[in-house]
Amino acid sequence: MKDVNGMIIPTWDDVIEAHDRVCPHIHRTPVLTSSYLNALTGAQLFFKCENFQKAGAFKVRGASNAVFGLSDEMAKNGVATHSSGNHALSLAYAAGRRGIPCHVVMPRTAPQAKKDAVKGYGGIVTECEPSTTSREEYFARVQEETGADFVHPYNDPRVIAGQATCSRELLEQMEQDHGGGLDAVIAPIGGGGMISGTCLTLSTIAPDVRIYAAEPDQADDAARSFRAGHIIADDAPETVADGLKVPLKELTWHFVKTHVTDILTASDQEIIDAMRLTWQRMKIVMESSSAVPLAVILRNPEVFAGKRVGVVITGGNVDLGKLPWMQH
Amino acid sequence: MKDVNGMIIPTWDDVIEAHDRVCPHIHRTPVLTSSYLNALTGAQLFFKCENFQKAGAFKVRGASNAVFGLSDEMAKNGVATHSSGNHALSLAYAAGRRGIPCHVVMPRTAPQAKKDAVKGYGGIVTECEPSTTSREEYFARVQEETGADFVHPYNDPRVIAGQATCSRELLEQMEQDHGGGLDAVIAPIGGGGMISGTCLTLSTIAPDVRIYAAEPDQADDAARSFRAGHIIADDAPETVADGLKVPLKELTWHFVKTHVTDILTASDQEIIDAMRLTWQRMKIVMESSSAVPLAVILRNPEVFAGKRVGVVITGGNVDLGKLPWMQH
Repeated sequence: MKDVNGMIIPTWDDVIEAHDRVCPHIHRTPVLTSSYLNALTGAQLFFKCENFQKAGAFKVRGASNAVFGLSDEMAKNGVATHSSGNHALSLAYAAGRRGIPCHVVMPRTAPQAKKDAVKGYGGIVTECEPSTTSREEYFARVQEETGADFVHPYNDPRVIAGQATCSRELLEQMEQDHGGGLDAVIAPIGGGGMISGTCLTLSTIAPDVRIYAAEPDQADDAARSFRAGHIIADDAPETVADGLKVPLKELTWHFVKTHVTDILTASDQEIIDAMRLTWQRMKIVMESSSAVPLAVILRNPEVFAGKRVGVVITGGNVDLGKLPWMQH
Repeated sequence: MKDVNGMIIPTWDDVIEAHDRVCPHIHRTPVLTSSYLNALTGAQLFFKCENFQKAGAFKVRGASNAVFGLSDEMAKNGVATHSSGNHALSLAYAAGRRGIPCHVVMPRTAPQAKKDAVKGYGGIVTECEPSTTSREEYFARVQEETGADFVHPYNDPRVIAGQATCSRELLEQMEQDHGGGLDAVIAPIGGGGMISGTCLTLSTIAPDVRIYAAEPDQADDAARSFRAGHIIADDAPETVADGLKVPLKELTWHFVKTHVTDILTASDQEIIDAMRLTWQRMKIVMESSSAVPLAVILRNPEVFAGKRVGVVITGGNVDLGKLPWMQH
């Protein structure tokens, strides 16, 4: 870690340390290819399948790094977060592996399946009202009562160092199994945890690889921030890619503004089409948020044609009873 | 091949030859595991993922062996079959790779998506009425007009030798990546092509491995044949596992009666539940027919507990707009 004007920024040493630390708790997920999608896009696509990851998402990398990096003294009070998504699930999984408590504050309106999934990994769910004020109030109370360590879903250097292990693995797998490196990597952007980790890794060990972030048209705050040169946060955006609604924070903004080549967007219909196409042709279950990169590639073929492109499939936690193309 | 009382039976030499022949045209599909499903069943399950196979199913192994085994003289008239499922798709794929015609007779009532998929691989579709008489009439006419070589979906020694390459790969992958052999293999049974290939391979190179066939309760003709000691064919059975409705024929019956340990069945609801569970936990798209083995394992835990079990996931060609749990 290095301190830059009071901001604690993870470094390459933190990534190497994180990788050793999380290895026993995560899968080395496969890199898949599809001759059909290559022909369709004119690019060579290499899908890093974090939908096959423990707890069903890349988030387990950062969460495990935070949980297993705690001293025994710190760890005994457990960890806490507010999230109704993959970070909550991943933190509960990692805390369960270490045998420490994991407190999750979730709006009472969150789907029961998500609450049950967190509880299934041993997480302790506290329900708040669906407002920022209520969430902060409940979260402060949980922290005060338990002394648990707060692990933010993305604006945390330990989390970013953990997510950075994903592109490190991808580069190793490219050299070992796919005949060489990449011209570009593309990943979805919400709060920017995965993209920041990707920036940290690539800027260190493969600085010529371009980094693209993919975002829904309907929650394009990162793209607008990128063009404006400062963080713009949307108020309650609505998109099918529901993992990507959260705004950038100062730590992820630092990586995005320094290392990202471009942020490209796709419509909700394009995202749904790309999601369905991937399920149909690659036979894998992935989240709507994970389909945004392919949707962006299909919308901007000229950017990617002829290139070797790593595509991060961020997660596979889907409500199979409620698929987006069934509602259209 | 050996001639036993007029029946041409494939031998181990045919499997080795088939494997060399089909290798350039198929994927060496991965073997996946799930700690969740292991805990749930008490067994160690190794899923051979033919849903990731070319054309989306194991059938491409047998179809490619038939197509690429033809002499140039024979090949020029192309191949023909009657099927509205994965065999038609696979034969069209293989014929396309060799650049020869593939004629498929399909009932006009078959889903448009299936006709389109065959045409997408360059297959020539002839529509018949949805009756056996009409199908045979149209098929005879196509054969007469084209001189195409008939490749039966399963009752063909070339096809069985091709399917046998799947369990050969599985055993190799077990030794290489999963620390040793298997106690049992389980695969779905419809006409018995996959099971016959599995019997041929295992009885030759791993004769101690038990072979289980998995069948829907509602199309349990193979299970009843097995107990009766002769082929029983059902008239138009109805089951969600629609790839498994066809009856055994003399060549597959030969392998089933000689080498299969048992044929176990599961209800349609159990099949749907196993299918959904696999999608949810393993994040892979597989057909309802491919879920029958897991459904059978969950119904008969005492048979499989504590065992190392290879599970053949036969295919991943699913109508994503019409999932079976959406209709229940």
